[in-house]
Amino acid sequence: MTRVVVDVMPKPEILDPQGQAIAQALPTLGCAGVRSVRQGKRFELEIDGVLTAAQRTDIERIAASLLTNPVIEDFVLRIEDDDVVDTGRPR
Amino acid sequence: MTRVVVDVMPKPEILDPQGQAIAQALPTLGCAGVRSVRQGKRFELEIDGVLTAAQRTDIERIAASLLTNPVIEDFVLRIEDDDVVDTGRPR
Repeated sequence: MTRVVVDVMPKPEILDPQGQAIAQALPTLGCAGVRSVRQGKRFELEIDGVLTAAQRTDIERIAASLLTNPVIEDFVLRIEDDDVVDTGRPR
Repeated sequence: MTRVVVDVMPKPEILDPQGQAIAQALPTLGCAGVRSVRQGKRFELEIDGVLTAAQRTDIERIAASLLTNPVIEDFVLRIEDDDVVDTGRPR
């Protein structure tokens, strides 16, 4: 089983009212020294078996179009828990 | 500058309708083999200078109470971009 993580964050030049609200609340909650907070989304996709190159391309396309609003958001895609190496041999 | 990342995800036993909707849409969008999708939140907190132990405790408390709904969500806290080592000496 392979886990693909897609982190979607607002672009740096985009205002993030949710993050700003959290940052403004922190000092009154006893948490000082936080300069800024940004809030984004995290998607965890579980793939059966090993992630193939074609699947990775598909998921990148989905991440860029369905999971991310490319006007205001950037995404980063990571492969986690990829503990099986694709040897190309049937298992 | 230190970046603290808080990943908030629905607990495994909690239904995630947003993630399920994405997972159900994927095959029709040409993305096969994805067993499940979970959607959560990602917070990036920027701290001036080095993260102290007291600040870390504060942020863990905030993550557990303000950023996470402990009834339905779990969180993971990570320190990133911590390229300055706190030697305890004034700089």
